[in-house]
Amino acid sequence: MIRTTDHGAVRELQLNRPPANALSPDLIAALRHAVESAPQDGARALVISGVPGRFSAGLDILLLLTLDRPAIAAMWRDLYALLRALALSPIPIAAAITGHATAGGTVLPLFCDYRVAAHGEWKLGLNEVQVGLPLPPIIFAGFRRLLGTHQAERLAVGGLLIAPDEAVRIGLVDELVSLDQVVSRALEWSRGLLALPVDAMAATRRSARSDLFELFAASFDMELEQVNTTWWSPEAQTTLRVLVDRLARKKA
Amino acid sequence: MIRTTDHGAVRELQLNRPPANALSPDLIAALRHAVESAPQDGARALVISGVPGRFSAGLDILLLLTLDRPAIAAMWRDLYALLRALALSPIPIAAAITGHATAGGTVLPLFCDYRVAAHGEWKLGLNEVQVGLPLPPIIFAGFRRLLGTHQAERLAVGGLLIAPDEAVRIGLVDELVSLDQVVSRALEWSRGLLALPVDAMAATRRSARSDLFELFAASFDMELEQVNTTWWSPEAQTTLRVLVDRLARKKA
Amino acid sequence: MIRTTDHGAVRELQLNRPPANALSPDLIAALRHAVESAPQDGARALVISGVPGRFSAGLDILLLLTLDRPAIAAMWRDLYALLRALALSPIPIAAAITGHATAGGTVLPLFCDYRVAAHGEWKLGLNEVQVGLPLPPIIFAGFRRLLGTHQAERLAVGGLLIAPDEAVRIGLVDELVSLDQVVSRALEWSRGLLALPVDAMAATRRSARSDLFELFAASFDMELEQVNTTWWSPEAQTTLRVLVDRLARKKA
Repeated sequence: MIRTTDHGAVRELQLNRPPANALSPDLIAALRHAVESAPQDGARALVISGVPGRFSAGLDILLLLTLDRPAIAAMWRDLYALLRALALSPIPIAAAITGHATAGGTVLPLFCDYRVAAHGEWKLGLNEVQVGLPLPPIIFAGFRRLLGTHQAERLAVGGLLIAPDEAVRIGLVDELVSLDQVVSRALEWSRGLLALPVDAMAATRRSARSDLFELFAASFDMELEQVNTTWWSPEAQTTLRVLVDRLARKKA
Repeated sequence: MIRTTDHGAVRELQLNRPPANALSPDLIAALRHAVESAPQDGARALVISGVPGRFSAGLDILLLLTLDRPAIAAMWRDLYALLRALALSPIPIAAAITGHATAGGTVLPLFCDYRVAAHGEWKLGLNEVQVGLPLPPIIFAGFRRLLGTHQAERLAVGGLLIAPDEAVRIGLVDELVSLDQVVSRALEWSRGLLALPVDAMAATRRSARSDLFELFAASFDMELEQVNTTWWSPEAQTTLRVLVDRLARKKA
Repeated sequence: MIRTTDHGAVRELQLNRPPANALSPDLIAALRHAVESAPQDGARALVISGVPGRFSAGLDILLLLTLDRPAIAAMWRDLYALLRALALSPIPIAAAITGHATAGGTVLPLFCDYRVAAHGEWKLGLNEVQVGLPLPPIIFAGFRRLLGTHQAERLAVGGLLIAPDEAVRIGLVDELVSLDQVVSRALEWSRGLLALPVDAMAATRRSARSDLFELFAASFDMELEQVNTTWWSPEAQTTLRVLVDRLARKKA
């Protein structure tokens, strides 16, 4: 589900779970492990990429609707651990957003260091509310960190998806390049950081990301309980099942 | 002074106090009551609008200069209660800024959920300093919440009024439409939120506006005492009276 | 090293230490003294300017590399005191950025009230990381205050220098004018503030800058110890010496 390629000191983790790079419990666990173990393997920076046209469609709703309460609870715990691993990574991480990046597909890049996206007709954004899920507070906090309070409120409450042009204008991504340049540009950005004096870059990075350390210093027990409760709420379950039925009919 | 129209589940509160929609103690009290009672009446969203060319000129200085200390103190207490009602409203509020929105006319939209303004030669902004009044800290906090520290400092300290184009560029308003579309666009935005899964939208909205809850959790006794003291200061009284005389001569 | 000119109530402090307006311990001490004593001398606003083409090149590395530990420690203590004097100044300060403003040359304007820069091929930004110095946390805090967390992280971690056009777009400076207008525009901006009702402007300014007061209320003993430790680190010393050698060869 993850294709690992070492480009010198920069390791690329390519999400590769057809057809939509949706996040299954297995992919979440695998990505968390890959992020956490990269520095021990000698990687000095990471690039997380998708496949052309698709970065990630977010949580694999179709699969998750078949899981029971303990499995859903484990998935959320692991997702939070993945976000923590991204946010507190000792090495820089660039997201190479190679296409659609909806819901969880936008959540992962929020906690990375840099976001390169492809020009094109892709959709980005946190549409959780549209599918009946309140945006978890930690994710809102990461969103607000990039966009400021005003834009984060507007987009999150409306569950809005936006085009790459708007995403770069409001700061959801850092730069746009052509689709075939997204990964190479993310690699180049990473190499740029690695060419800097090592300790000065690392210390400044810790300083600039100290708010993320504070954010993840909290205990998430209560928040996770709330996230699980709303997952099993009638509104969320109904909305998610309607969505899945509609997607199934579309395919048929 | 307020024309109430129910457009389905969205209630429009149109400020209608000729000639300038200036905020009198009565209008402040009436608007507060209208905002607070709307949810009990079954409204699921609010639009606060003005008249064509005039959203609100802010506090009715001409009237306020005739009031004694207890009446001024009551007015400020009520204005803070109105801002609190807007900020903590259980239902979303859009401001339909139909023209000039100076001082208090910009303050009200700060605490709403969304701001649609009309293209045109209108003035928006917090020009309190120009008329001798320090910007009350709670209002500065709402201003900074939308614009960020940098722009909020620049505009508030200078007491600057700006055009709609600049207002949308820096985030003081969310979108610009033609004057005849302002109210309908605000209604449309409200209906868009109401079409979303109810609990998910409400929970995300609470999360995105939790900083406003913290802001208004404070006691404002000391701040109100300060606001009253400066109202009665020689500088404020002199500047306000010069302003009122100039306006009177203009009319004559 | 500082040319003082009183333009009515606005005092201009022109940095004048050829060839690059680099910050020596003496210039830092002199500028701190000039900023702190201006209000007692009757100045009601300050403009800090450079020479045409050069605002300031930041710390005078060539000179600092000749100093011992006590002298370096005294320099950092004085630089922090200068930043504090700028941030907490009882009178407004405009920076007239007349050309290149790198590292310390960008640090000073961060803590001023307003920044006018010249159109042109100048470089601005905090390139400390490029020369082996982690960006001190207080400086990052001032940077983030102007730019927001996202842009501040991107620029500080990469040690990036940017052109005036980008600087004004992201909020590092407030406006761009032609080089021969920079000082006069900064004076005009200052006079604009002084034409406002005095107490209202001052109180609003305190409110808008209260976060700077909180920032500088901290004790900086530990931070200064850290800043000194990294100055003497092998990485910083090596990188700085390579830089100085390269500059020396360039001249020869």
